[in-house]
Amino acid sequence: MATQILPSVDNRHRKDFGPTTCPERLLLGPGPSNADPVVLKALSQSPIGHLDPFYVDLMSEVQELLRYVWQTDNRLTLPMSGTGSAAMEATLANVVEPGDKVLIAIKGYFGHRLADMAGRYKANVFSIQKDWGQAFSLDEIEEALKEYRPAVFAIVHAETSTGVCQPMNGIGDLCRKYDCLLLVDTVTSLGAVPLYLDEWKIDLAYSCSQKGLSCPPGLGPFTMNERAEDKMNKRKGKVPNWYLDVSLLNKYWGSDRVYHHTAPVNMNFGIREALRLLAEEGLDSSWSRHKNNSQLLWDGLENIGLELHVKKDLRLPTLTTVKIPKGVDGKAFTKYLLDNYGIEVGVGLGDLSGKVWRIGLMGYNSNSKNVHKILDIFKTELPKFRV
Amino acid sequence: MATQILPSVDNRHRKDFGPTTCPERLLLGPGPSNADPVVLKALSQSPIGHLDPFYVDLMSEVQELLRYVWQTDNRLTLPMSGTGSAAMEATLANVVEPGDKVLIAIKGYFGHRLADMAGRYKANVFSIQKDWGQAFSLDEIEEALKEYRPAVFAIVHAETSTGVCQPMNGIGDLCRKYDCLLLVDTVTSLGAVPLYLDEWKIDLAYSCSQKGLSCPPGLGPFTMNERAEDKMNKRKGKVPNWYLDVSLLNKYWGSDRVYHHTAPVNMNFGIREALRLLAEEGLDSSWSRHKNNSQLLWDGLENIGLELHVKKDLRLPTLTTVKIPKGVDGKAFTKYLLDNYGIEVGVGLGDLSGKVWRIGLMGYNSNSKNVHKILDIFKTELPKFRV
Repeated sequence: MATQILPSVDNRHRKDFGPTTCPERLLLGPGPSNADPVVLKALSQSPIGHLDPFYVDLMSEVQELLRYVWQTDNRLTLPMSGTGSAAMEATLANVVEPGDKVLIAIKGYFGHRLADMAGRYKANVFSIQKDWGQAFSLDEIEEALKEYRPAVFAIVHAETSTGVCQPMNGIGDLCRKYDCLLLVDTVTSLGAVPLYLDEWKIDLAYSCSQKGLSCPPGLGPFTMNERAEDKMNKRKGKVPNWYLDVSLLNKYWGSDRVYHHTAPVNMNFGIREALRLLAEEGLDSSWSRHKNNSQLLWDGLENIGLELHVKKDLRLPTLTTVKIPKGVDGKAFTKYLLDNYGIEVGVGLGDLSGKVWRIGLMGYNSNSKNVHKILDIFKTELPKFRV
Repeated sequence: MATQILPSVDNRHRKDFGPTTCPERLLLGPGPSNADPVVLKALSQSPIGHLDPFYVDLMSEVQELLRYVWQTDNRLTLPMSGTGSAAMEATLANVVEPGDKVLIAIKGYFGHRLADMAGRYKANVFSIQKDWGQAFSLDEIEEALKEYRPAVFAIVHAETSTGVCQPMNGIGDLCRKYDCLLLVDTVTSLGAVPLYLDEWKIDLAYSCSQKGLSCPPGLGPFTMNERAEDKMNKRKGKVPNWYLDVSLLNKYWGSDRVYHHTAPVNMNFGIREALRLLAEEGLDSSWSRHKNNSQLLWDGLENIGLELHVKKDLRLPTLTTVKIPKGVDGKAFTKYLLDNYGIEVGVGLGDLSGKVWRIGLMGYNSNSKNVHKILDIFKTELPKFRV
């Protein structure tokens, strides 16, 4: 190095940007939601080593609290070092072998994503589909399981793109009857909507950190039971994804503590604190809080003459889809809310693009103050956008 | 929902853990390194939406500053939403097609990992190997390229497991001559060790956030040039990894801003601030600082009679491997440092397990105060461990 003559440094990309100061936002869209300030404080501690004894204990605590919020005893319960989408991919990557039949129940954007991912792992992908805003009945699911006899059946519990909460009772029994794994997306339900992983006989699930858990985005809670583990252990080759390979991750998160990758330690400080606060509040209390605040929102929206997209018994407490009234430019309205109030409300995705707004009340943000605020703004501002 | 009778919540995993308060550590191991407190402050701001106009601007700024620290014009330069290992996998996942010959120059732990990953993408993997602590000569590389004629040649610039800095001059020309892509691991060099991506004709590279950049772990800087992009675009099928698929990520990070996954926004606040501080200091200054402090460390260690594992002209300024003196229990000593001083020093990995300590001086931690501190402690404490 000493003898090497170095070229001069090129400064064309050396931009003089100011300090990273973000605007204050109230995030009432499909996510991320605002994080609890206590979580942000925990997150901002100085990093420690990923094999530090303190960190190793913290990992076990995160796992244990994830078991609580998921209501599962699964040993293999851990946050993937990526966002919810990474955890989503991990569920498929670890159990799907080339040629496996994977049946996806598609009723929104994230069902389509599951199908895309499963195809990349060379699954033989089949789907049943419903309009965006509907849920599947047990009969529809049984019929499809009988027809396709898949190795894995995947369904979204809480569809963020439609605001539908899929009733889960009985699906696990059907999957056992037809001998397939049940894989469930709980991204917009974990911590906020009743969810009983073991009771519902769910074999694989994933979620995110930035919704019901009140933590910033960046970690993807993941869990698999012994049935799923059995399938993984019988694979012919390695998991075709190194980063998300649970057989390797298990050596780091399990008792061996073998180095796999340098963990995102600060994000794990955050999720540990977020889960701790949730355990302190209690799952039942959090579920009730979300239920009550969404009820307040639904009543308020209907009182000002707005129509909700999903029928009442299928509505998600975390994410409400509101029909955009005829003649209103939905996007112009959400831009106005962001520019003038610093409030984020989501627009529609995919089939619902241009048709609905998506209002989220998740985790830390699910409180009556926020409900009244957004209702008041809709009341006073929306008339300006009607033609 | 209203009519459903819910099972009661199982509280067995509802543990009453205390607040998330981490011990203060001085991280002088192989990484993570301590983050700049200014970066930690930026990181802890309230999250904003991943499609918020402010965030979209921030993304472009992060990309531009990454181009500066890598000294590249590559359009496809972005932080993967995972740790350095995710970015490592992304380089292979995007360009390797089944049956492609991939040649890995292995001279430490991370070369082996590249080989493992490439195999998962069904590459035909070949390797050349050197002892841990050595570097490859141009002749050795040319001979191997001639013999194997690979589609991709991968090498680690800064081997964190050995403390070797691979001389890069001429390797890019050889890869062009033998018509293969040059893939380089810059995990322990980016921002801290002279590195000229375009000048050195590197086609694909990856790094991490927690070393030379002084940010916590959690993001994996990634870059590919047009030669690599061409290979990706000619793929027969989809990239077999959804989360790391650059053709999809490009639609989010590029001008389209199409939603891919919910970005880890807080980590991106952090890396933006970290890169801004580095641009403010200037790459040349940071490189000199690392060089000077490592020189101070090397001299000091030799003065107290310790031997360094790597010969001087191949030593990395960021990571120094120190031979554990005969009779000293290396692990007991690092445990003592952590327990009594809150200082983390690394032990050896793989072939160097039990043989060396690894002392890191990276990013925010590369300063003379830390060098004097660790030297003083070695001076006073190490004799207690000698038999």
